[in-house]
Amino acid sequence: MADFQNCDSCSSSPLELFERVTAQGEKVRSLKAGKASTDEIDAAVKLLLSLKVTYKTATGQDYKAGSPPVDFSPVSNNGPTTTQDEDFVDPWTVQTSNAKGVDYDKLIVRFGSSKIDKELINRIERVTGKTPHHFLRRGIFFSHRDMNQILDAYENKKSFYLYTGRGPSSEAMHVGHLIPFIFTKWLQEVFNVPLVIQLTDDEKFLWKELTVQKAYEYAIENAKDIIACGFDINKTFIFSDLDYLGRSSGFYKNVVKIQKHVTFNQVKGIFGFTDSDCIGKISFPAIQAAPSFSSSFPQIFKDKKDIQCLIPCAIDQDPYFRMTRDVAPRIGYLKPALLHSIFFPALQGAQTKMSASDPNSSIFLTDTPKQIKTKINKHAFSGGKDTIEEHRKYGGNCEVDVSYMYLTFFLEDDDKLEKMKQAYASGALLTGELKKVLIETLQPLIAAHQQRRKQITDEMVKQFMTPRKLAFDF
Amino acid sequence: MADFQNCDSCSSSPLELFERVTAQGEKVRSLKAGKASTDEIDAAVKLLLSLKVTYKTATGQDYKAGSPPVDFSPVSNNGPTTTQDEDFVDPWTVQTSNAKGVDYDKLIVRFGSSKIDKELINRIERVTGKTPHHFLRRGIFFSHRDMNQILDAYENKKSFYLYTGRGPSSEAMHVGHLIPFIFTKWLQEVFNVPLVIQLTDDEKFLWKELTVQKAYEYAIENAKDIIACGFDINKTFIFSDLDYLGRSSGFYKNVVKIQKHVTFNQVKGIFGFTDSDCIGKISFPAIQAAPSFSSSFPQIFKDKKDIQCLIPCAIDQDPYFRMTRDVAPRIGYLKPALLHSIFFPALQGAQTKMSASDPNSSIFLTDTPKQIKTKINKHAFSGGKDTIEEHRKYGGNCEVDVSYMYLTFFLEDDDKLEKMKQAYASGALLTGELKKVLIETLQPLIAAHQQRRKQITDEMVKQFMTPRKLAFDF
Repeated sequence: MADFQNCDSCSSSPLELFERVTAQGEKVRSLKAGKASTDEIDAAVKLLLSLKVTYKTATGQDYKAGSPPVDFSPVSNNGPTTTQDEDFVDPWTVQTSNAKGVDYDKLIVRFGSSKIDKELINRIERVTGKTPHHFLRRGIFFSHRDMNQILDAYENKKSFYLYTGRGPSSEAMHVGHLIPFIFTKWLQEVFNVPLVIQLTDDEKFLWKELTVQKAYEYAIENAKDIIACGFDINKTFIFSDLDYLGRSSGFYKNVVKIQKHVTFNQVKGIFGFTDSDCIGKISFPAIQAAPSFSSSFPQIFKDKKDIQCLIPCAIDQDPYFRMTRDVAPRIGYLKPALLHSIFFPALQGAQTKMSASDPNSSIFLTDTPKQIKTKINKHAFSGGKDTIEEHRKYGGNCEVDVSYMYLTFFLEDDDKLEKMKQAYASGALLTGELKKVLIETLQPLIAAHQQRRKQITDEMVKQFMTPRKLAFDF
Repeated sequence: MADFQNCDSCSSSPLELFERVTAQGEKVRSLKAGKASTDEIDAAVKLLLSLKVTYKTATGQDYKAGSPPVDFSPVSNNGPTTTQDEDFVDPWTVQTSNAKGVDYDKLIVRFGSSKIDKELINRIERVTGKTPHHFLRRGIFFSHRDMNQILDAYENKKSFYLYTGRGPSSEAMHVGHLIPFIFTKWLQEVFNVPLVIQLTDDEKFLWKELTVQKAYEYAIENAKDIIACGFDINKTFIFSDLDYLGRSSGFYKNVVKIQKHVTFNQVKGIFGFTDSDCIGKISFPAIQAAPSFSSSFPQIFKDKKDIQCLIPCAIDQDPYFRMTRDVAPRIGYLKPALLHSIFFPALQGAQTKMSASDPNSSIFLTDTPKQIKTKINKHAFSGGKDTIEEHRKYGGNCEVDVSYMYLTFFLEDDDKLEKMKQAYASGALLTGELKKVLIETLQPLIAAHQQRRKQITDEMVKQFMTPRKLAFDF
């Protein structure tokens, strides 16, 4: 799960930036020496990392302690620097200065993935005989790796399986957390394949101030919200790492195989780990990688090691799977394929993702209709103009309007969405009216989710989380 | 398991040493770049590490690439340097230039453990009502941590448990490998407590050119030799990490708890890991630490988290448990107590341990009577004089004589041993005669072991390795 770091250093000179990085490094060290809370230290480290990124963007050089910047093109101390062009995306931090959100086309180039283009969407439609999900049609799932390989295999009657997951950092999930699950459910239905869902309670234990017991309890609570999305119990296995690692004859073996083929230098480069990080964090990427291999689930796939995996996830999780794909051929396994989604924006704007830790940045799955209404009206960043007169005259800006963005996720009716876009852009539709449509879309959707969640018994959770054969023969 | 590195750089100048470290660093990098075999790289890295230790001993400074030594006391290029005073001991390397072996009194001071003195041995005798094992009487188990705490608890009718282990790097075990098991068996019998034995097949997979399957097979083969030592199946649980991690509800949870409280900086300091090491090695110490806590074995101890652990092991394993003892109170667990043994010397001399990879350095448990005889006669380093005349006149040196050392391990009769020591020192006993006594001691001992091992069925191994309640109520 990613946190947001405001880019509050975008208009400093390289030397000022250098000094800020140095000072922040000093602060991290003193927090650590003073045994500050993990949260406090984590926040300081994140700021340090993002300052380093900003520094590199501004100077073209890596920050090196004791070596002030040299040979950079001088930039004005007052005007914006090139830092505004660079987004920062890793599994813990998503940062952009652009109200439209992260520049995903650039991210595709930087990550080396492929764009989900019209051709691929058409092929999915052809192969499955189903209308592509609106997440595909609207570019919410926008990037992929090897999806054509999955479709080739599928056309040749060769099966694959789906793998997605969630880091259970608290009981409360917000609507953004549903995106991968809604889409995965659709994929499972149209392709009719097994699905495994990993709850990384071990990760949350390692990263947060949580006990093992608490992290596991969050995993169980989150499992209920996931089950409430409507997954088929006969085709879906949900597991907590803390529990399943002690119940699988295949999982740990794959974890050590991966761990043998990834060095500290590599995870340092991919995830930004430092020498002060605990060895649990350093080795965790192998735990998230292992479910990409069918032999981690012998109860489902028997001894089959060549069932390919397709992972729908938000793009910030890609570093884990770039690492996995790098290791796979070296340990005799198939590379997992991926489908990447954009981030679900915070109410305050698309510079960041929703965060479970700030109640006002998110619509929670536990929110009442009244809370939903108040939050949207009060906090949803508007692309409308300041006065009704101006709005009527110049129209609103859908590209930065959070209510409109949310509707692209949750309003299934393409025509209605398009009409609203035009009406908003033309000024015919006011921000309050647009917000009303969003409120009326989300209220029943969340109420229905709450209704379904209430039906989920402990027994059902236990069944979903019991290692077992699914309704497929391998 | 530790390998030996000959101290072939003991009489170089600091600058020469500096250049050798630099050259060796270069060699490691080129081996890695050239994708040399893990064994080859490991060997080169070990030599690099030991050269760095030698360098530090000679100059009092850490080796720093690009910075030749300064401010050291000049030493002669020809005479011996201070390096000869320093032994190198970690879980993979044991190195000394002294034919008497490692200086264990210094090691106790360096590691911060306590000497097993006459008083402690007497207390063990008083508490158990049994004659102390000759490994205790002869200083083979010479160092401890918190053994008095174990005895206090035992006197107060509070139980504890034993934990020892083995890294199954090959099918072949040598007589030196039996030392911790022989002693642990005695401890189990006199204290009547549960025993867990860890086979670190995951470690061997990570460190060696082995498949997961092969490492596990070695674990099973080694388990047979361990069982052949005569452990009570009702009181002993033997486990392979690769297997048990996937079968325990407690083990992995303790592993992540430990991993959360140890940083890369710490394992770098303790074990000498580098940024080029794989994340499996870096996180492995937590796997060896976790069995020190009773909650890793819920099938034996139920939910009891406060059953103290006593670990008999060779002193080179102490770094793992220093780390474990550092972490224990921070995760709410008791520190394990330890009993440390000296190393079992190679046939060629006490500068090193026996190594399973050099057939002539060891007496294997599979050796025939003839092989035992030949190896001892041919390879056992002698403390005798060059000619019979000189030997009769000046006597032999028991302190460096490997046959005599082996007899201290395996000849139980104190009187006979003492008589031979005197006769050898006086010159009355010749090296050939001493070797004959050793041969006649080891031949029946190993034959009996082979006989017992033959009786071990796969079913018995399976039983020993099945997670289950033992004959103790917790």
